[in-house]
Amino acid sequence: MEKLIIIGGVAAGMSAAAKAARVNPRLSIEVFTAEEHISYGACGLPYYIAGEIQSQDRLVARTVEQFQAQNINVHINHEVIKINPEEKQLIMKNLTQGSIITKNYDKLVIATGASPFIPKVEGVELKNVFILRNMEQGIELRQYVENKKPRSAVIVGGGYIGLEMAETFQKIGAKVHIVERASQIVPNMDENMALLIQNYLLEQGVSVYTGEQLTKISGNTEVSEVITDKRKISCDCVLIAVGTIPNSKIAAEAGMELGIKNAIKVNTRMETNIPGIYSAGDCATVRHLLTNEDVYIPLGTTANKQGKTAGENAAGGSSEFKGVLGTGIAKVIGLEIARTGLSSREAESRGLQYIDTVVESRTAAHYYPDSSKISISLCAEVSSGKLLGGQIVGGRGAGKRIDVIAAGLHLGARVEDLLDMDLAYAPPFSPVYDPILTALTDLQKKLNSERNKKSKYLFTIRNCDKIN
Amino acid sequence: MEKLIIIGGVAAGMSAAAKAARVNPRLSIEVFTAEEHISYGACGLPYYIAGEIQSQDRLVARTVEQFQAQNINVHINHEVIKINPEEKQLIMKNLTQGSIITKNYDKLVIATGASPFIPKVEGVELKNVFILRNMEQGIELRQYVENKKPRSAVIVGGGYIGLEMAETFQKIGAKVHIVERASQIVPNMDENMALLIQNYLLEQGVSVYTGEQLTKISGNTEVSEVITDKRKISCDCVLIAVGTIPNSKIAAEAGMELGIKNAIKVNTRMETNIPGIYSAGDCATVRHLLTNEDVYIPLGTTANKQGKTAGENAAGGSSEFKGVLGTGIAKVIGLEIARTGLSSREAESRGLQYIDTVVESRTAAHYYPDSSKISISLCAEVSSGKLLGGQIVGGRGAGKRIDVIAAGLHLGARVEDLLDMDLAYAPPFSPVYDPILTALTDLQKKLNSERNKKSKYLFTIRNCDKIN
Repeated sequence: MEKLIIIGGVAAGMSAAAKAARVNPRLSIEVFTAEEHISYGACGLPYYIAGEIQSQDRLVARTVEQFQAQNINVHINHEVIKINPEEKQLIMKNLTQGSIITKNYDKLVIATGASPFIPKVEGVELKNVFILRNMEQGIELRQYVENKKPRSAVIVGGGYIGLEMAETFQKIGAKVHIVERASQIVPNMDENMALLIQNYLLEQGVSVYTGEQLTKISGNTEVSEVITDKRKISCDCVLIAVGTIPNSKIAAEAGMELGIKNAIKVNTRMETNIPGIYSAGDCATVRHLLTNEDVYIPLGTTANKQGKTAGENAAGGSSEFKGVLGTGIAKVIGLEIARTGLSSREAESRGLQYIDTVVESRTAAHYYPDSSKISISLCAEVSSGKLLGGQIVGGRGAGKRIDVIAAGLHLGARVEDLLDMDLAYAPPFSPVYDPILTALTDLQKKLNSERNKKSKYLFTIRNCDKIN
Repeated sequence: MEKLIIIGGVAAGMSAAAKAARVNPRLSIEVFTAEEHISYGACGLPYYIAGEIQSQDRLVARTVEQFQAQNINVHINHEVIKINPEEKQLIMKNLTQGSIITKNYDKLVIATGASPFIPKVEGVELKNVFILRNMEQGIELRQYVENKKPRSAVIVGGGYIGLEMAETFQKIGAKVHIVERASQIVPNMDENMALLIQNYLLEQGVSVYTGEQLTKISGNTEVSEVITDKRKISCDCVLIAVGTIPNSKIAAEAGMELGIKNAIKVNTRMETNIPGIYSAGDCATVRHLLTNEDVYIPLGTTANKQGKTAGENAAGGSSEFKGVLGTGIAKVIGLEIARTGLSSREAESRGLQYIDTVVESRTAAHYYPDSSKISISLCAEVSSGKLLGGQIVGGRGAGKRIDVIAAGLHLGARVEDLLDMDLAYAPPFSPVYDPILTALTDLQKKLNSERNKKSKYLFTIRNCDKIN
């Protein structure tokens, strides 16, 4: 019986396992994970910590027993410490008993995820300094929050997780401070949009310090103060959320090629450079559909899609996952923020000649009670007129509008192809012109006037030629 | 100075006026409307009647004075009774003074809207039998509702307006009965989806009688009972919402060609068969982007787009409005319903070989507190694999997902082009796989198996050929 082994039991790993079992029911499938928990929605942890989700069991999609019923054998508390591709063998440690085990595989999927980056500053080891990548850390933080009821929290890092956790801490009644090293929060959005988010946070009573570097965390056994290069902030707890590092060490040691940010390099079949070994999720690279570059954008939905693809191929099927647009979304207290494609900054850094716009509109008819502000930025390439990306910041109903932009990008649409889209209108859902259409129309105007400028410029040059 | 006259002062008419003024500031622009109110959001009337929008002024986008400031002269209470294209002349009646006026134009835009269809049954003229097309009728109904606090209402017609008004009557505390002649409510959706809506209404305490014909409304001066071919329903008031008839009479009398459902036939420039005369909005036809047929789908957002196009062209510019997908959305108490493209029934009636699917998913991660059920139906053409249409019924956050399907249809996408779209995921917004992706994946599976069946069938035929 052919043996498939999967290392990792969360989004990518369990998707791979489930898909492989469907594709080839006669396959022997074993999953090994160093964690105690499997198949949980890690993205739900901020809401679990806030108490909005009562039990951790709610976060679990399927239990070990349910996988067992599908002929998938899951072994928790097993850490793979070495991959030996020549012998197709894994060496692993049973974390409960401390014993060393070897296991042979025919096909292998590496879905080891990522670890939080922890800045090397004094005091990060103090009590009440938290990180949040897995269920165990989530449970720990929930227990802390319930038992200690912290009055203030410093979040180091203003990305998606930092902002979602700002909502969590706000909800449990703590004063929140965000410290971000970059000159803006949400560094994958453009500065003007990030400022809208920052202003909203300030209105909500969250302190935001951008362009500030964490230098020290101080306290006796428990944290009492965070020190940056500009100020001291006293606090009851700290969350470190400054990005993640792919867990690619054992893969690299086994001869697997690493790509950007040391993530395991995979092709669109999720295969590594070693035939028969696949990788998926937060430990792996992914193709960017617009730039065709390999990127490292570890997100839950991508992990699932990559895992499914890896599982199908490892089980003898044939599947491709073509890539991502870097679509992301987050709820930040009452604000919805979303992005897809290239930001203007990313377009700039790739030397693209782009034009961008920001429009402000409403999520619903201006007279409808629930209507709230929405800001949309769009970016397009001047020469081709192709849409490059978009970003959204607004009230309820704003964020998922990003999907329309993602659909346009996915299909390679020019801005003018999208101008008259028949988007749904009724007062509770949209102004008469959906904000997406308003933004597209504005961008097309700018594209037209940019082109007119160019043709005028060319005309002037030609006239000069004639005069000479 | 060139004279543009626009007949009609709501969505299409005022969009035309505003656009024309921007395109050609030296144009003389006059708007004549038989109504007293202009530039109001007619689609907002159900929420105004429910008292969710306090003042009728909130529904008004711009006042007569504001248009005046843009050099647009609006004349209310003026009913155009004859168009004389040879002399480029209008004959109209000042409804306040009763006087007859003639006016000359160079260019004309007809945006006379539509009137509710009123069934010819005994009792429709009784007091407390309402229709709802314009602001005046909205004000009348609001006053009735506030003063009389009806305890029960019968809505004749289960389309968008009927369902939105079911929410309104429910909100003010009336028991609601819906009588629909067709075998299902929302006849532009497929039966399975309509049944989901009907079941929801029943759960909410709304009575729904489908396949029932209104035969009589009875009462002394005020309505007291509605009689159908199957039952008697006592009630305090009745709303007739069984569809609309384009106000195309004066256009037809002036020699303008009428199209489907007697709407004024226009091309993509919104021009009628008489050069220099344009039409837009609920009185005009519109092109269906998928079938290339002229259709009559009177909706607010289309009226605005058509009006803008008519205004631009009438002012000497050049603009096309290519058409619609029949996208529609409505909020029905807590339920969101939406559709775009062709329903399976419409695909069937056009002789298309289609395949369809319905999937059930969640609007947010299953563990997220706000998560609610969403059902999505999709329909595709077997031979080309092209998406034909989609329908959605679900809780908050469900409806506007239709826009992703509309974007795909707009760009002529095949189902397989859309499978791996990078749609936004975070627990408050979506399951890991957005329901749209789940539905597309399911539909693609069905497409594949349909094709396999066919190729097997062809294979059998070919083998028979060989044997023979």
